[in-house]
Amino acid sequence: MGSIWGENLKISLFGESHGSGIGVVLDGLPAGIALDEAQIAAFMARRAPGRASHTTARREADVPEILSGYYQGRTTGTPLAAIIRNTDTRSADYAELLEKPRPGHADLTGAIRYGGAQDPRGGGHFSGRLTAPLTFAGAVASQILAERGIRIAAHLYEVAGIRDLPFDAVTASTAQIDQLQSREFPVLNPELETSMVAAIMTAKEKLDSVGGIVECIVRGLPAGLGDPMFGGVEPRFASLLFAIPAVKGVEFGSGFAAARSYGSENNDSPQFVDGQIRTRTNNSGGADGGITSGMPLLCRVAFKPTASIGREQDTVNLRTCQNELLVIHGRHDPSIVIRAVPVVEAAAAIASLDLLIGDRSVY
Amino acid sequence: MGSIWGENLKISLFGESHGSGIGVVLDGLPAGIALDEAQIAAFMARRAPGRASHTTARREADVPEILSGYYQGRTTGTPLAAIIRNTDTRSADYAELLEKPRPGHADLTGAIRYGGAQDPRGGGHFSGRLTAPLTFAGAVASQILAERGIRIAAHLYEVAGIRDLPFDAVTASTAQIDQLQSREFPVLNPELETSMVAAIMTAKEKLDSVGGIVECIVRGLPAGLGDPMFGGVEPRFASLLFAIPAVKGVEFGSGFAAARSYGSENNDSPQFVDGQIRTRTNNSGGADGGITSGMPLLCRVAFKPTASIGREQDTVNLRTCQNELLVIHGRHDPSIVIRAVPVVEAAAAIASLDLLIGDRSVY
Amino acid sequence: MGSIWGENLKISLFGESHGSGIGVVLDGLPAGIALDEAQIAAFMARRAPGRASHTTARREADVPEILSGYYQGRTTGTPLAAIIRNTDTRSADYAELLEKPRPGHADLTGAIRYGGAQDPRGGGHFSGRLTAPLTFAGAVASQILAERGIRIAAHLYEVAGIRDLPFDAVTASTAQIDQLQSREFPVLNPELETSMVAAIMTAKEKLDSVGGIVECIVRGLPAGLGDPMFGGVEPRFASLLFAIPAVKGVEFGSGFAAARSYGSENNDSPQFVDGQIRTRTNNSGGADGGITSGMPLLCRVAFKPTASIGREQDTVNLRTCQNELLVIHGRHDPSIVIRAVPVVEAAAAIASLDLLIGDRSVY
Amino acid sequence: MGSIWGENLKISLFGESHGSGIGVVLDGLPAGIALDEAQIAAFMARRAPGRASHTTARREADVPEILSGYYQGRTTGTPLAAIIRNTDTRSADYAELLEKPRPGHADLTGAIRYGGAQDPRGGGHFSGRLTAPLTFAGAVASQILAERGIRIAAHLYEVAGIRDLPFDAVTASTAQIDQLQSREFPVLNPELETSMVAAIMTAKEKLDSVGGIVECIVRGLPAGLGDPMFGGVEPRFASLLFAIPAVKGVEFGSGFAAARSYGSENNDSPQFVDGQIRTRTNNSGGADGGITSGMPLLCRVAFKPTASIGREQDTVNLRTCQNELLVIHGRHDPSIVIRAVPVVEAAAAIASLDLLIGDRSVY
Repeated sequence: MGSIWGENLKISLFGESHGSGIGVVLDGLPAGIALDEAQIAAFMARRAPGRASHTTARREADVPEILSGYYQGRTTGTPLAAIIRNTDTRSADYAELLEKPRPGHADLTGAIRYGGAQDPRGGGHFSGRLTAPLTFAGAVASQILAERGIRIAAHLYEVAGIRDLPFDAVTASTAQIDQLQSREFPVLNPELETSMVAAIMTAKEKLDSVGGIVECIVRGLPAGLGDPMFGGVEPRFASLLFAIPAVKGVEFGSGFAAARSYGSENNDSPQFVDGQIRTRTNNSGGADGGITSGMPLLCRVAFKPTASIGREQDTVNLRTCQNELLVIHGRHDPSIVIRAVPVVEAAAAIASLDLLIGDRSVY
Repeated sequence: MGSIWGENLKISLFGESHGSGIGVVLDGLPAGIALDEAQIAAFMARRAPGRASHTTARREADVPEILSGYYQGRTTGTPLAAIIRNTDTRSADYAELLEKPRPGHADLTGAIRYGGAQDPRGGGHFSGRLTAPLTFAGAVASQILAERGIRIAAHLYEVAGIRDLPFDAVTASTAQIDQLQSREFPVLNPELETSMVAAIMTAKEKLDSVGGIVECIVRGLPAGLGDPMFGGVEPRFASLLFAIPAVKGVEFGSGFAAARSYGSENNDSPQFVDGQIRTRTNNSGGADGGITSGMPLLCRVAFKPTASIGREQDTVNLRTCQNELLVIHGRHDPSIVIRAVPVVEAAAAIASLDLLIGDRSVY
Repeated sequence: MGSIWGENLKISLFGESHGSGIGVVLDGLPAGIALDEAQIAAFMARRAPGRASHTTARREADVPEILSGYYQGRTTGTPLAAIIRNTDTRSADYAELLEKPRPGHADLTGAIRYGGAQDPRGGGHFSGRLTAPLTFAGAVASQILAERGIRIAAHLYEVAGIRDLPFDAVTASTAQIDQLQSREFPVLNPELETSMVAAIMTAKEKLDSVGGIVECIVRGLPAGLGDPMFGGVEPRFASLLFAIPAVKGVEFGSGFAAARSYGSENNDSPQFVDGQIRTRTNNSGGADGGITSGMPLLCRVAFKPTASIGREQDTVNLRTCQNELLVIHGRHDPSIVIRAVPVVEAAAAIASLDLLIGDRSVY
Repeated sequence: MGSIWGENLKISLFGESHGSGIGVVLDGLPAGIALDEAQIAAFMARRAPGRASHTTARREADVPEILSGYYQGRTTGTPLAAIIRNTDTRSADYAELLEKPRPGHADLTGAIRYGGAQDPRGGGHFSGRLTAPLTFAGAVASQILAERGIRIAAHLYEVAGIRDLPFDAVTASTAQIDQLQSREFPVLNPELETSMVAAIMTAKEKLDSVGGIVECIVRGLPAGLGDPMFGGVEPRFASLLFAIPAVKGVEFGSGFAAARSYGSENNDSPQFVDGQIRTRTNNSGGADGGITSGMPLLCRVAFKPTASIGREQDTVNLRTCQNELLVIHGRHDPSIVIRAVPVVEAAAAIASLDLLIGDRSVY
């Protein structure tokens, strides 16, 4: 409900794009886990705006301050709260939008939902900026998972129709994960960076935007996590992934392609390999019946193109009740999908840790 | 959590494929709503097995008995519980599977999760049979929605690569919905029935199975429902849809195709039409920022091919710890996607009613 | 919310006093636990009506049928559902009550809450009869706890002003627990049975009723269970205990008496005893800061006198909008508190198992 | 679970006594409600330490900073987060306590629960200081309730055995509520202030502490709120009240006294008064069957004496595994019950607003 998510690890997000601060409370973290704050900062920097010409010019230091749940460098087990101050806000950019909702944004639905009382500046609570505290939470979660040997990686699977190499769903090779974490531009095939950036810059020049797909893998999750039916892996991951602004589709394993395959192709046959059971293929994406199989968890997340574009667009004027034209000024990403990569990783880390903390095999 | 779902309307599912009974408890229903039991039975019959040659030969009367929450033909507002007895069970068919997990099923993950104590017969609690009480709950929900003028329809969007006409996402025309509800075979283009059934029967002859995609529309939901961020329309629908066995992908509106479009194409421009705000297109699928826009809600759900196929498959023997071959006997659908159509409708009805009951605009 | 309770073990109750059946779904049980059905029946028999002259003459076999989650004598880990058929119903007894709400019952508040659509027969979903499935759930939970060496007992602490001996809060002696379980009449001092029964029978003769207090102890819960703040032991126990019809007060340890004591008297000093930390006194009732201390958990639960009495009472007529007199016919307990003893035990067992399953010390 | 509470209005508390900040997130507030910040500050000042000789000498400005969910003086409907900085912290006072747990505190249970990783300073997350953000949340809730004509008041019902006048449970007279809100010392009989303060100061001189009881009334709640069984008024109020540190008992209406009464005395007879149904007495405390009756909601909350006392006490040394003596230094209340009065009011306001937002009568 609302801005609280989770079964065993609960996160409570708050904030508006141009309010005084945004943040998150993590309730249910295991106690006594050392956190590496520099690593958290590095993780968050991957999402931060203003790093390159193909992202928004807005700059935010985005340095989280941990207020609680953290003592002498370790988690205490009680709620860990962190806040991020909004600094580089330009409210004037958004004045017109109160009466002229931006197409593709939640300006109109938010106004209906909250009777006009919502904070309209920069999309308020609906802003993609809320992915900053989500990313913080994911950075914390991924460090805790790393202690258990669980690694998460994501890449730009597709942007503007240009498709990267896929993850190897069976091996989830450490090499692929290492490569991604060493690269500024998150693709498995580095030769695609130029054409992808070019496609994004072309859209920008046309005052337009492009969407894309992020693919994410979680390697090392033990088998046997998750609860049928609604507590399964896919329902839980999807309920978090679909909360990321601009996400319009989520698939696991072979996903929509499974719908076009035969059972004899799509079934993953278990086999003993070195005394351990592994499946030859991983079309299920790491879960059967909502329960992890021990194979890598694999999902793909579709992002629509950035709703804020420079072109003139049709909209309504809520004050005059007339149809009108709108030109959105301000600073916007021609594609949010690059910055979405660590956000998807963060969501996957949070959902994975939620599963792991709820592990009942130890009862 | 596990087999309980919902915020404002909670459903609690229980049962195993070959246990004495399966059922559901609905907690939070509005009081005083008359239910049409014949209509519920008709809704459930669309999911029931054994109706045609292209579905499983297993026959179940599937007559739900309402135990509570229902008095003199109306809902009481207190929990409505219904049970369905399992009658046509053949436990002997499943004896071998205890040691030889079926590829593509939850036999192996379930055994790990429950330490071997799960009911293995017919997939137990993981069985698609659990969609019977889900469908019952959806039949109840859709009647309550109908009182508010909200209608739900779904069709076989794609099976074995053959694609039906799509829903009209803007008008969600009553004609399309009426047609679907009058047809035995749930497609918008009736000329496709022959080729679709032929494709399914071909798979059956090859001892194989095919997957497919179900498209679903909800027409008449008021604008302003849903709570950002995790309580948004998409997270809530997806968390229920991904709990349906065999679902591997969910998308809303333009979905994965949005990832390949430009912002100028994908943004839905609001316009005054006869004094009401409507969007010209409906690529968002009826929700922006997780809040309903008043446009039809549109989603597509990808089903993998039926995991149980007649062909010989590789698997492991958990007793001998050897790789072995498996031939699954018993009665199985060559494609569950036809019977999945009312299940998706049911899930959409439950999720829609959950949203509607939680409507805060009346506070 | 509504009729679903729990964090890690969720129970979903349903049914009405005179509907076709009542029942419960337990979601989250550990898998592979053998249940002794005879023991469950014996536990439930302690709550069942019609056993003695001082309880209601209504007779119900109250034999639960387990529908799911139970295979070959063991829990499967998936939802365990059980139903109890209502057999001895006399709807005619309740016809007048539709328009003349009984003082002290939920007839009036239920009618307001559900707009008159509630099942009015015998209190419907508000009936004390709903404690039958609660007791079933508690009987299951207490067997699972027993496997871990955790024992629960309750007694009639007070009835009609006559007070039993208290539990020994420090030792929670096995002798006391054994005695209680061997006795028909649940008191620690067996000499009080005669006077207690006499007081109840006197009330009955006067067409009146009496209340009482049940004291309950849980022995053997490990230290370190519970989550601050709202997930603490007391909030969780209280949220379940106050759901038992007729409960008006709950206290832990020294309870209300603590309010009249000095800190120097009430503080429990920890001391090493045989290498283990124990507190000398147990005024806290087994939890500090909402976390179990390893000392026995002790609570007392106050029940108001049975609302249904034979005397003529003032009430309103909802149809005529006049004040009127009411005489309640039918069969009622002059004191429910004897039958409430196993219900409190059941609630304590459910809450204890919920805590235990959520044990995070194993993470 | 943990530090998140609520069904329709969720509050998420965080912080430690001597960390950098404490706070709360309120999720689910109605939108567009103007808040009076001066009134919030005044409400919180009643809880703040350091105001009088009979409370702790620790001084905290306790000025909450609202970070989100609040725009142009009104709630936005999205999560409202507020933080309070800890300023007057003296960590050195608590160094010894790491190895010598204080009797009556959660030092020992917290250490077990969190494996020694908890923040030990001042009780950490278990500190009564966490009632500051709870009081902030209650101050916000009570203003929103006031808009609907709902008023809440609480008083020192009993301290050190000295008992105040009770609330009038039937009329909940405005005069009583007005008087309380105009008085510095929260009693209905102002003549008792001197003796109550004297009793507290006597305890202080003896390096001891006293407990007490707070009585709280909510006037103006509409009839028909709450859900049976676990979603009833009493379970929901109790689950919040028992989360307040030091609470050992909660009762509604006649409470434990009901256990000693006859049904003919305790039943509340409904009667038409000026065309409205009211009950002559209000022994139920405003709810029957967990549903509000429209009569004032009345509860009493028992607080144990402050655990921190100046006297030498027995405890254990966790490092040396020896029994030892402990003298607690630092600044502590000889009775927290005076400061607990607004905390109980705050909890009652939060629980009442949660009920009101969940009102289903409007469906």
